Amino acid sequence: SAGWFRRRFLPGEPLPAPRPPGPRASPVLYRRPRFLRGSSSSPGAADASRRPDSRPVRSPARGRKLPWNAGYAEIINAEKSEFNEDQAACGKLCIRRCEFGAEEEWLTLCPEEVSSYPAAPCWVRGQLGKSGHYWALFDGHGGPAAAILAANTLHSCLRRQLEAVVEGLVATQPPMHLNGRCICSSDPQFVEEKGIRAEDLVVGALESAFQECDEVIGRELEASGQVGGCTALVAVSLQGKLYVANAGDSRAILVRRDEIRPLSFEFTPETERQRIQQLAFVYPELLAGEFTRLEFPRRLKGDDLGQKVLFRDHHMSGWSYKRVEKSDLKYPLIHGQGRQARLLGTLAVSRGLGDHQLRVLDTNIQLKPFLLSVPQVTVLDVGQLELQEDDVVVMATDGLWDVLSNEQVAWLVRSFLPGNQEDPYRFLKLAQMLIHSTQGKEDSPTEEGQVSYDDVSVFVIPLHSQGQESNGH
Amino acid sequence: SAGWFRRRFLPGEPLPAPRPPGPRASPVLYRRPRFLRGSSSSPGAADASRRPDSRPVRSPARGRKLPWNAGYAEIINAEKSEFNEDQAACGKLCIRRCEFGAEEEWLTLCPEEVSSYPAAPCWVRGQLGKSGHYWALFDGHGGPAAAILAANTLHSCLRRQLEAVVEGLVATQPPMHLNGRCICSSDPQFVEEKGIRAEDLVVGALESAFQECDEVIGRELEASGQVGGCTALVAVSLQGKLYVANAGDSRAILVRRDEIRPLSFEFTPETERQRIQQLAFVYPELLAGEFTRLEFPRRLKGDDLGQKVLFRDHHMSGWSYKRVEKSDLKYPLIHGQGRQARLLGTLAVSRGLGDHQLRVLDTNIQLKPFLLSVPQVTVLDVGQLELQEDDVVVMATDGLWDVLSNEQVAWLVRSFLPGNQEDPYRFLKLAQMLIHSTQGKEDSPTEEGQVSYDDVSVFVIPLHSQGQESNGH
Repeated sequence: SAGWFRRRFLPGEPLPAPRPPGPRASPVLYRRPRFLRGSSSSPGAADASRRPDSRPVRSPARGRKLPWNAGYAEIINAEKSEFNEDQAACGKLCIRRCEFGAEEEWLTLCPEEVSSYPAAPCWVRGQLGKSGHYWALFDGHGGPAAAILAANTLHSCLRRQLEAVVEGLVATQPPMHLNGRCICSSDPQFVEEKGIRAEDLVVGALESAFQECDEVIGRELEASGQVGGCTALVAVSLQGKLYVANAGDSRAILVRRDEIRPLSFEFTPETERQRIQQLAFVYPELLAGEFTRLEFPRRLKGDDLGQKVLFRDHHMSGWSYKRVEKSDLKYPLIHGQGRQARLLGTLAVSRGLGDHQLRVLDTNIQLKPFLLSVPQVTVLDVGQLELQEDDVVVMATDGLWDVLSNEQVAWLVRSFLPGNQEDPYRFLKLAQMLIHSTQGKEDSPTEEGQVSYDDVSVFVIPLHSQGQESNGH
Repeated sequence: SAGWFRRRFLPGEPLPAPRPPGPRASPVLYRRPRFLRGSSSSPGAADASRRPDSRPVRSPARGRKLPWNAGYAEIINAEKSEFNEDQAACGKLCIRRCEFGAEEEWLTLCPEEVSSYPAAPCWVRGQLGKSGHYWALFDGHGGPAAAILAANTLHSCLRRQLEAVVEGLVATQPPMHLNGRCICSSDPQFVEEKGIRAEDLVVGALESAFQECDEVIGRELEASGQVGGCTALVAVSLQGKLYVANAGDSRAILVRRDEIRPLSFEFTPETERQRIQQLAFVYPELLAGEFTRLEFPRRLKGDDLGQKVLFRDHHMSGWSYKRVEKSDLKYPLIHGQGRQARLLGTLAVSRGLGDHQLRVLDTNIQLKPFLLSVPQVTVLDVGQLELQEDDVVVMATDGLWDVLSNEQVAWLVRSFLPGNQEDPYRFLKLAQMLIHSTQGKEDSPTEEGQVSYDDVSVFVIPLHSQGQESNGH
């Protein structure tokens, strides 16, 4: 609630009694995704002699099939951090349903090891069970811990949230009351008028799952004395639809023969400027007198005092001029351009999980109140697409999109897949090829010499003839 | 600032000393747009015997040309209110530019009578002057006063805001400093990197003008002891571009032979649900314990207590279920569906001008903190369109769009214009025809018997061969 927000983040508000320190939990240990076990690596750059920092590209071992025969590949950054701060998870997502009124009749357990696909077969009683598939990328910052926790946890949160509304999911139209009983005879009509469909419950479950996972990460990192945050990009197939939930600056696109469709939207200090400035307008205390919420083309200095300069405030999409006062010389709430844009001089993303303890260097100013853990969710009605053999979803962390445009990725997809339809490893190879293309290879479609020095992780998810599989079985 | 917001709207905050009551200003007098002077009316419904409430359709007298030969027509509501609460204005918009450093050298005054076009010729020294055109619709509620003030005032606010940034408007790229001097040699590069163009200054000026006009209306109505609010939809042509600024539920669309393009977006309690719920989350005091900010399919009642029902909160696009508590039985912050949706049980729009004194019936709960006066602005690059003879913008208040879809309006435009290219009054006649189509005429494309009982006002603005005229002359 707002009361909680004020107590947590505003000075002078009465704080809740601190929890007694429990026994220190063991720290989150570094690991790579479990589906990479037993995998080998290939060198990252084609011409290792030219690039001495050549790094290995990793993919699952050939015998290990990911859901829908998706391809995966990753590369670690050029010593920007000790660990690869990207993480990935994928697997089958089984949602249990209990019989009415008999809570003890929960059936069918899928092992929660989604990251070590293939999971044990999912047995569900009768027609009640629904299973889906799940692919997720997490891009950590400030250490790998938050991304690892997210990879271990988010699918469980999602399963729990979906199970909490499963009676609504299996109905043609979600009932007003979860138990299906009508209190007013016109209740179905009210639901109909609001246009509420089963897919809205999945969207709601994804939104809640991200928030639940954020709380888990906050608790776990506090208990283990660790820090950090991560972005999250999740694709879920369920009942013939593909849901893409995104919080951060990773990206998913649909690539078809004649179409490139963005399935996510990046959340950065630039794209969320108005929301962030608005919060600083409502709670100026959050800036502790150290930052200005106004946007200027560059940071102002003494010489600008008294001049009229270009600026934008929270309510403005356009620009105007204002006369510079002393308080305008403070460091800007959002500073820098494009990839260099930072929130409070610290963070390049404005949504994600974790970062509960993150503060501006040498101050007590917190980042968390400006961050949202809630994702934006896009729904792709796969059943309506008239899918073709080479239709794929490409999901990748920002390291890929920093050097490859949507069009360049689509060009690579369309150049590679049609000639390799018989190859069972084509999606794996395509994922590897996408990674290679970020490493300045000569045959890459990027401009000469463009290299990603960031961690890069990619899923290539083929859509063709997968629609059926996503229904209950 | 936020301090102002808190003092103005939150209980327990120290109030500024009340202004001493000045002499009571004379009330805003009811009138119709000045360009309707000398006009005649035609009956609203084709078959007056069938519809005894037949109301007159009004248009400008045939000798009175509106800017760009635009057509205009209006009809009063079916006795919903004593007055026609819609208002309209249009005319030439002259923007003066002063010579550097010589403020007294302001040149060229256009009479501010934009609503009585044609204005006296606008003479501007050399190439400095820029003139544009302006069309505006205002839909009042709670009395006609706010809409009349807006029709009298908004163009002056806009002219003032544009003149304040005119040095930036005439440059290829707005300078970082309004006086054009560079303090850092890289200042132009910073502006370039932010992608700031002259059109962003026009957008900013429109945003500021709406807010300035809102303040003027607040002061004037307080001084005259009147109340009310209005929506505002404004189209401005300037330097080859058409800007459409909208605050409320009026609508503008571009109709071409092969295209229907929305130029505005409606702001209602439904379309702005998340923003409104978010404010109630941040400042629960604004609801005074009388409303719940949560959305449910219908208002809950005692029988729902303890049940799990569908709901949405401010951070949710999807739906979920929650167990009903007593506080969920309160009246919802946003209630009703579609045209019946109301903010705090009171207002059907969430943006507009005025309403400074509006309170929920029999309470002290204010509407104003939930309303925005800032418009959303769409920019149409008319120069890029390859315009054809029958390309028009149709602007109308919600009374039209309640019974005609975009497609139906486009069908009427395309049926009428091509056969009447020689008729100098074709846009006037088209505007009248659109109004007639909301009155249940038999040849109307609406479903049998659909009649708008609301005030309806329409501008039809032809775009062809007008591009040049909008440049300075």
